[in-house]
Amino acid sequence: MIEVEVKVSVKDFADVQEKLIQIGAVKIKREHQIDVYYNAPHKDFEETDEALRIRVIPENGKNRIILTYKGAKMDDVSKTRKEIEVDVSDAENTDLILENLGFRRAASVTKDRDIYHLDEFIITLDTVFEIGTFVEIETEAHEDEDTSESLNKIFEIYKRLGIEEGFERRSYLELIHINV
Amino acid sequence: MIEVEVKVSVKDFADVQEKLIQIGAVKIKREHQIDVYYNAPHKDFEETDEALRIRVIPENGKNRIILTYKGAKMDDVSKTRKEIEVDVSDAENTDLILENLGFRRAASVTKDRDIYHLDEFIITLDTVFEIGTFVEIETEAHEDEDTSESLNKIFEIYKRLGIEEGFERRSYLELIHINV
Repeated sequence: MIEVEVKVSVKDFADVQEKLIQIGAVKIKREHQIDVYYNAPHKDFEETDEALRIRVIPENGKNRIILTYKGAKMDDVSKTRKEIEVDVSDAENTDLILENLGFRRAASVTKDRDIYHLDEFIITLDTVFEIGTFVEIETEAHEDEDTSESLNKIFEIYKRLGIEEGFERRSYLELIHINV
Repeated sequence: MIEVEVKVSVKDFADVQEKLIQIGAVKIKREHQIDVYYNAPHKDFEETDEALRIRVIPENGKNRIILTYKGAKMDDVSKTRKEIEVDVSDAENTDLILENLGFRRAASVTKDRDIYHLDEFIITLDTVFEIGTFVEIETEAHEDEDTSESLNKIFEIYKRLGIEEGFERRSYLELIHINV
């Protein structure tokens, strides 16, 4: 699966929240996400632009835990990249499996995420601990699909939200490394 | 977690099944298990005696899927080794994550497994496709625990089952490789 995604840095969410309602986006939920990123024993993911992550989302008194692989970014304007996810039953054991395979914890990212839906798009308002506030708009495409139309639609939505600058191709992981 | 385990090759299960009932073992269930083993991009698991596996167990119309890491064997008489497991939601995506990380499918093992419980021990009767029939007795220990007492108890159970030879330290993966 390809994740077609464009991120933008914003000062705050007041304007965006108002405009999201105006254009008919529906707020689905708020999530707290604790992400741990790993680096590989046989290559440097910072160089290859890949990522391996365990995400923990506390939900109704228990944790949803997701293991995610992300491939390198596929164009020069967006964060579009291959993304593969599975839910796992246990964060500690998943971490232990990765550590025993030689993967090492590289960084962690914690955020609150408000999630909106608009047609086939997911719009998120992220308050990222120690990094800042960001809007992301994303949708999914198949591996052999042309993603340019989806990208155009994403930039159209940004226009309707009054956002035409501040676009950010770097991942939160990359931004955290710069911030440190 | 340490998996303390001793395996033995048997001609058939007739004798063992009778004796299991005599010594008070309780049959829990029968599982069909389809295992795929992977090798690593940065070392050869055949040399390091490690294993990485996706196991699929069809159960009540859906699949239970388990990702398992096994460390090297820890002594000269048993298959005792570190074992870490998590349930995952999707076998195909787990395979894709591993493949994208550079792991490669090395072999697959398919078996029917009858599972018995006796005190803290799990006794399994395995009919392994293209390999043969085996009994395994295993229990769990903590990482810092002395496993020799558990091992002695396992060999005692084998004695009570009338089994004193045919012990097999090689995994099914290793046996399949020899068979090919």
